Amino acid sequence: MRLSRYFMPTLREAPSDAQIVSHQLMLRAGMIRQEAAGIYAWLPLGLKVLKKVEQIVREEMNRAGAIEILMPTLQLADLWRESGRYDDYGEEMLRIKDRHERDLLYGPTAEEVVTEIFRAYVKSYKDLPKNLYNIQWKFRDERRPRFGVMRGREFLMKDAYSFDVDEAAARRSYNRMFLAYLNVYARLGLKAIPVRADTGPIGGDLSHEFIILAETGESEVFAHRDLVEMGAPGADIDWNGDLQPLVEQRTSLYAASDEMHNQARFEAEAPEDKRMNARGIEVGHIFYFGEKYSKPMKALVAGSDGVERPVHMGSYGVGVSRLLGGIIEASHDDAGIIWPDSVAPFGAAVVNLRPGEASIDAVAEQAYQALLGAGKDPVLDDRDDRPGAKFASLDLVGIPWQLIVGPKGVAEGVVEIKRRATGERQTLPLEAAIKAICA
Amino acid sequence: MRLSRYFMPTLREAPSDAQIVSHQLMLRAGMIRQEAAGIYAWLPLGLKVLKKVEQIVREEMNRAGAIEILMPTLQLADLWRESGRYDDYGEEMLRIKDRHERDLLYGPTAEEVVTEIFRAYVKSYKDLPKNLYNIQWKFRDERRPRFGVMRGREFLMKDAYSFDVDEAAARRSYNRMFLAYLNVYARLGLKAIPVRADTGPIGGDLSHEFIILAETGESEVFAHRDLVEMGAPGADIDWNGDLQPLVEQRTSLYAASDEMHNQARFEAEAPEDKRMNARGIEVGHIFYFGEKYSKPMKALVAGSDGVERPVHMGSYGVGVSRLLGGIIEASHDDAGIIWPDSVAPFGAAVVNLRPGEASIDAVAEQAYQALLGAGKDPVLDDRDDRPGAKFASLDLVGIPWQLIVGPKGVAEGVVEIKRRATGERQTLPLEAAIKAICA
Repeated sequence: MRLSRYFMPTLREAPSDAQIVSHQLMLRAGMIRQEAAGIYAWLPLGLKVLKKVEQIVREEMNRAGAIEILMPTLQLADLWRESGRYDDYGEEMLRIKDRHERDLLYGPTAEEVVTEIFRAYVKSYKDLPKNLYNIQWKFRDERRPRFGVMRGREFLMKDAYSFDVDEAAARRSYNRMFLAYLNVYARLGLKAIPVRADTGPIGGDLSHEFIILAETGESEVFAHRDLVEMGAPGADIDWNGDLQPLVEQRTSLYAASDEMHNQARFEAEAPEDKRMNARGIEVGHIFYFGEKYSKPMKALVAGSDGVERPVHMGSYGVGVSRLLGGIIEASHDDAGIIWPDSVAPFGAAVVNLRPGEASIDAVAEQAYQALLGAGKDPVLDDRDDRPGAKFASLDLVGIPWQLIVGPKGVAEGVVEIKRRATGERQTLPLEAAIKAICA
Repeated sequence: MRLSRYFMPTLREAPSDAQIVSHQLMLRAGMIRQEAAGIYAWLPLGLKVLKKVEQIVREEMNRAGAIEILMPTLQLADLWRESGRYDDYGEEMLRIKDRHERDLLYGPTAEEVVTEIFRAYVKSYKDLPKNLYNIQWKFRDERRPRFGVMRGREFLMKDAYSFDVDEAAARRSYNRMFLAYLNVYARLGLKAIPVRADTGPIGGDLSHEFIILAETGESEVFAHRDLVEMGAPGADIDWNGDLQPLVEQRTSLYAASDEMHNQARFEAEAPEDKRMNARGIEVGHIFYFGEKYSKPMKALVAGSDGVERPVHMGSYGVGVSRLLGGIIEASHDDAGIIWPDSVAPFGAAVVNLRPGEASIDAVAEQAYQALLGAGKDPVLDDRDDRPGAKFASLDLVGIPWQLIVGPKGVAEGVVEIKRRATGERQTLPLEAAIKAICA
C-alpha cells in the first residue's frame, strides 16, 4: 500500500472528550471515527488491526476444537422469553419492533440463539462434545458509553458456547477455553491473569475473568507473582488430553480483581515478595453454567443409557474490538501506539524522504518490494510531506519498523532502520536492513 | 477437518415453506438456519462459503484501488435527515429508539455515513480519487421476506463509495467498479450481464445492474449473445489507465432486464441469431449520483483553482450473502449443490468407507494429509455411517471432489475419485489421484 493513495487521517489533537489514552490514540491515529455515542466506524488502519486480532482469536478457537458459525445480530425476543431473561435484562438490551410489530432485539450475547440451534440438530451424546463460536457485532445500550472501544455500545465479540453430556465433560470443555484464552493473549503480546469471577447475569457456578496488565487499567488486580510470570501453555499441548493439571497450576495461585479480593487470604497464600498488585483491564470472561439455558429451553441429549437430559453448557467471551483498546493501554509511549508485531496494521514502513527524486524512489521501491515479497505487509510512505511530519505520524500509528530512504544514505549505499518499540536505529546496506526487519 | 467432529446437520427434506431451490438446498445442506423471518444463522458450512465469497469480493475491490473500512450497523437518524432520506425511505427502514429515546436505524445502505466520514477528513482535490468500501451486515425490513438469503432482511452487503473532483473523474471511478464487478462474478463461476438500470431511491443518472444467468432466476433478461460470451476483463488490466473502451465494448451491446426492455430496439440492435432471452438474478447494482448527498451534507473539496465544490460520488453494491443463493440457483442438480472450486466449503472430501479399520484409516489419513499439504482445504469423512448416506450428503453439500477409500481398492493399491460437477469417476493409485484433484 502507498500512503499517498491510502486513507489514514491522523490528527494532531484528540477531541477533548476522549479521556483515556487508547481512545485518544485511536482517534489521533485515524483508526476509528465516532458515528454516535459508543458507535464507531473503523477506518482502514483500525480495521486492519481489528481483522488481525480477530484472526488470532479465530485460530486459537479452531486449535482448541471450537467450530465457527455466525449468528445474526438481531434476535427474536421470544427466545429470551423462553430462557426467562427478556424481562430481567434491563435497559442495556436494545429492544426493537419491526414493521409487523414483532419484538426483536440486538443481541448483547447469544446463549439463547445458540441453544436454539443446538437443540434443533443435536440429540445424542455421540455428537458431543461440541463448541460453537462466532465473531459478531453485539450491542449493549450502556447508559454512559465512554472510553472509545473500551466501553462502546456496538462492539465486536467472540462468543463460544460449549455443549457436553455432563458436568465432568463440561469442565473439560471449560479447561480447553481457559487455556486457549491464555494463548490468545500471549500472541497479542499481553500479560493476562485469570481471576475467579462473579457470574452475573449469565449465571452459573464456575467463572473466570482474564485481566491484562496495563498501568492505565480500570481495575485493580492482586496476584501471586509466579502466576503472572507463568505465561501461556502454548499451542502444542494435547487439546484432547487431560488439561486439568495445566489449569490447576494456574488456578491454585492467588489471583483476584478488587471486587473479589481478600487481603487476608492473599497474605496467607503469597509470601510478601511474591505479592503483585497492579492495574488491569478485563478482556475476557468464561462461564460454566450447566443447565441454566438447556433446561428451560429443552435442549436435551440422550445419554449412553438412552435417557434424555438437559445438555451442560458453558459460554466464553472475548471483546475483540475492546482488545484493541487494551493492547494500546498496555503498549504506548508519548509518541503514540507501539503495536506488537502480531497485530500491527503494517509490518514495516518504507519512508521515502524525497518522493519524486528518481534515485530515491528507486531504492524506496526496491525496499518496499523486498518487504512485500518477504510477507511483511509493508506500507510505502510516498507522501509529499516534511520528514518530521512523516516520522511523527508513523510513530503515532505504531508501525513496528521504519526503513528510511534519503539522499545522504542512498549516496553512501545505505538506509536507516528504526525499531518503534525501542527507538533503536541502525544504518545498514539495504539487504542487511531487510534481513534485520525480517529476522 | 474430520466430519465426525464437525457440525454439518444435513436434512433429508427441506421445510415446505422453502419455495426456491437455493433456499431448499441451503437448508438441507446445513448451511443456514432461520432464526426469524428473513434472519438466518450461518452454520459452519454456510459460513465457510460466505467467507470465501466475501474474500473474492474483497480482493477484487482492493485490486481496483478501493480501500476497506467498516461502518457500524446502527446509524444516527439525524444523518439521514441531513440527506433528506429519513422520511422518504419507508417501512423497509428499521427504525430504533435507544434508552435515551434517540433515533437510530439499522443501516439498509451507508451513503450518509460514508459521506460524513469523508467530509470530516478530506478537503482537497489532491486527496482524490478515493473509493471506500465495507462488507457489513445490513437490514431491510421486507414486508414479506422469502427465498432464503435471496430476499432476507438481515443480509451481508459489500458497499463501495467513490469520491471524485468532477463528473469525468467520477466516471473513471465508475468504470473501475463496473469492470471489477465482472471479475468478481467470473471468479465465482457465474455468467454476469450488465444492464442499464433505474436508479431508484439511491438516485442519480447513471446506473447498471448485474444479472447472473440461472434458469430459476426471478427476472427475465434480454441481451446480445456476444455480450454474454464476452467474459470478464481479467485482473491484469491497467486499473489506473483508460478503461472507457473496455466498458463501452460491454455497454454498446444490447442488454436489458424485463423492466427496461424494449423489444423494437432489441430487434434493431441484435440480429435474430444473436438475441438471447434468459432468466436471471440481480446480484449487483452500481450508481453514479454526483452531488446528491455531498451537496445537502456539505461534503466539499477544494479544486485546483481553490474553489470548494461538492464532491462527486457513486455507490456500488454487491449482496454477498445473496450471491450464495445466486450461485446455487445457477449451479445445482437433483443431488444437490455443485460449488465452483473457488468457493466450495471444502476443496475435496476423503471418504473413508470403513472407519475404524486400521488399513483403511491409514490410507484415508494419508490422502487427507496429502490434500491438506497441497492447500486443497479437504475434509475427512470418518463418520460411522452407510456409504450411500455419506455419498448422498457429500453430493448434497457439493464438495467438488470425492476421494473414496474402501477395502477393495486398498487391497489393490488404488482409490476412486469422483468429480461432483460431472459425475466422472476414475480409479487410480493414491498419488495419481491426489495429482488429478490438485491439477
